[in-house]
Amino acid sequence: MNIPDFDDLRAAQARIEPYIHRTPVLTSNYLNDLSGAEIYFKCENLQKVGAFKARGACNAVFALSDADAANGVATHSSGNHAAALSYAAARRGIAATVVMPHTAPAAKKAAVRSYGGKIIECEPTQAAREASLEQVLVATGADAVHPYDDARVIAGQATCALELHEDIGKLDAVVAPIGGGGLISGTCLTLSTLAPATRIYAAEPANADDAWRSLRAGKIVEKDKQQSVADGLKTNLKPRTWHFVSQYVSDILLASEDEILDAMYLTWERMKIIIEPSSAVPLAVILKNRDLFRGQRIGVIITGGNVDIKNCPGCKS
Amino acid sequence: MNIPDFDDLRAAQARIEPYIHRTPVLTSNYLNDLSGAEIYFKCENLQKVGAFKARGACNAVFALSDADAANGVATHSSGNHAAALSYAAARRGIAATVVMPHTAPAAKKAAVRSYGGKIIECEPTQAAREASLEQVLVATGADAVHPYDDARVIAGQATCALELHEDIGKLDAVVAPIGGGGLISGTCLTLSTLAPATRIYAAEPANADDAWRSLRAGKIVEKDKQQSVADGLKTNLKPRTWHFVSQYVSDILLASEDEILDAMYLTWERMKIIIEPSSAVPLAVILKNRDLFRGQRIGVIITGGNVDIKNCPGCKS
Repeated sequence: MNIPDFDDLRAAQARIEPYIHRTPVLTSNYLNDLSGAEIYFKCENLQKVGAFKARGACNAVFALSDADAANGVATHSSGNHAAALSYAAARRGIAATVVMPHTAPAAKKAAVRSYGGKIIECEPTQAAREASLEQVLVATGADAVHPYDDARVIAGQATCALELHEDIGKLDAVVAPIGGGGLISGTCLTLSTLAPATRIYAAEPANADDAWRSLRAGKIVEKDKQQSVADGLKTNLKPRTWHFVSQYVSDILLASEDEILDAMYLTWERMKIIIEPSSAVPLAVILKNRDLFRGQRIGVIITGGNVDIKNCPGCKS
Repeated sequence: MNIPDFDDLRAAQARIEPYIHRTPVLTSNYLNDLSGAEIYFKCENLQKVGAFKARGACNAVFALSDADAANGVATHSSGNHAAALSYAAARRGIAATVVMPHTAPAAKKAAVRSYGGKIIECEPTQAAREASLEQVLVATGADAVHPYDDARVIAGQATCALELHEDIGKLDAVVAPIGGGGLISGTCLTLSTLAPATRIYAAEPANADDAWRSLRAGKIVEKDKQQSVADGLKTNLKPRTWHFVSQYVSDILLASEDEILDAMYLTWERMKIIIEPSSAVPLAVILKNRDLFRGQRIGVIITGGNVDIKNCPGCKS
């Protein structure tokens, strides 16, 4: 199993720099007062394709040799990785095929198409995704870029915490959402070298608590058909992300669907940024566990902003 | 009539720096493709109190002598200036009283109160606002800080275009919303010295076209009871802002209510930032007048992000 190291992270930073934004870090006095902490929000909703996934996808695509790139790339994804891989492939001028659950939000499908990606729809289960992808790989010879179980992708996602560290300096803790674990793994890769005293928390929907269960069981616990408004966080860990989660994550904190939506609207209203439900889970768990973070400098990774604004649950309350 | 000059602008920049954010300038490939222009959005929705008004209010409040400051400050405002003055006064530790139309959005009233400002409600006309304010001034001896007809305020707002110029360099044109004209006047103050070749366009709701009529008449044309979803832009010019508008504004461009709301949602969806309707008028007029801006580097000032997200017109479509 290929595990990325700090050299891979530095190489990724240089490789993807022309294709991504260095996103701003925003603060809110209101949310600081509310939480009792000093929170630094790394705004990957303002990233290319509206999500941190642009980092890992660009690193994977631009790490390919010309010969390997010629057959294109393919993946399965609940949404943002699909758009990101399509974006990265288009920047390199190669084809991208993405397997998506037919239940994925319309905005995410439209985004993939707008970047020139080809969509193959499947049932919304991990097994169906993997089977459909296998068919695509056989048919095209494309390079498979898994949304998180890929050393190149993890090294790319790690550049997000690297920028946060460069811009804000030492933090007491960083909180990021966990789905399959790619972002958290990248965060662990960065901070375990640069700031080993910084605690790393993963934030997960209580409705999709496979990682929480895994951490408590001491091994990967898989759950299929998880349902949450945080649609990017329904996937399961893989050995490569478990490697990082099991070693470096202090704890996994859970939030209910209502807590996630409340934190999302609070962010829209007070920070004036659109974040998708998955991105709100860290703030939800910080507000729910104030004693754990009080008086501390906390980094939060806002993972993306791709949401059907007018059709999002609760928007019409 | 006291007209601010470039020295006042430089003094304002130094005076307010501890109390405001240097807001980011964002770009969107999607909106560039759509408009055919290269647009640089100066994001004052991410400013303190969620609007550029923090600049002028801080400049006015911190320019006061200790003796003058002791009686507090007062103003009338449709919303953001009220919150901004309350914020600035709180930072200096003095009282702020604000006269607001009772029709002002609930979110804007709540913002004023959250910063410690005291609200006096009045009818939603310019005459009623001015009469109520006069009563407050007599009762308190407060310093009146007009939302735009004030040299200190204009010099403060001018720092916004100054930062844009410092960060992005030469632009072919800058487009900013026009209500009473404070922001545009500050923009004129900055650019007429630093970049006199940059054209300045004001963007105004067709439903509140007093400035457009003024420019064509060659004198201030007042209109009362103007109604627009862009609630920050319903006020009339004053001689101090007309001084700048009449000399330096290339043209005033109008947008319909639907065009404003469409541009607002487009910005929410594609740029992942919450902007209030007033802030969407520049994008609306750029998309409506593509030939005027095609192939050019355009600065747009996003003025604020204070909007009742769940109750905004069209949100429930």
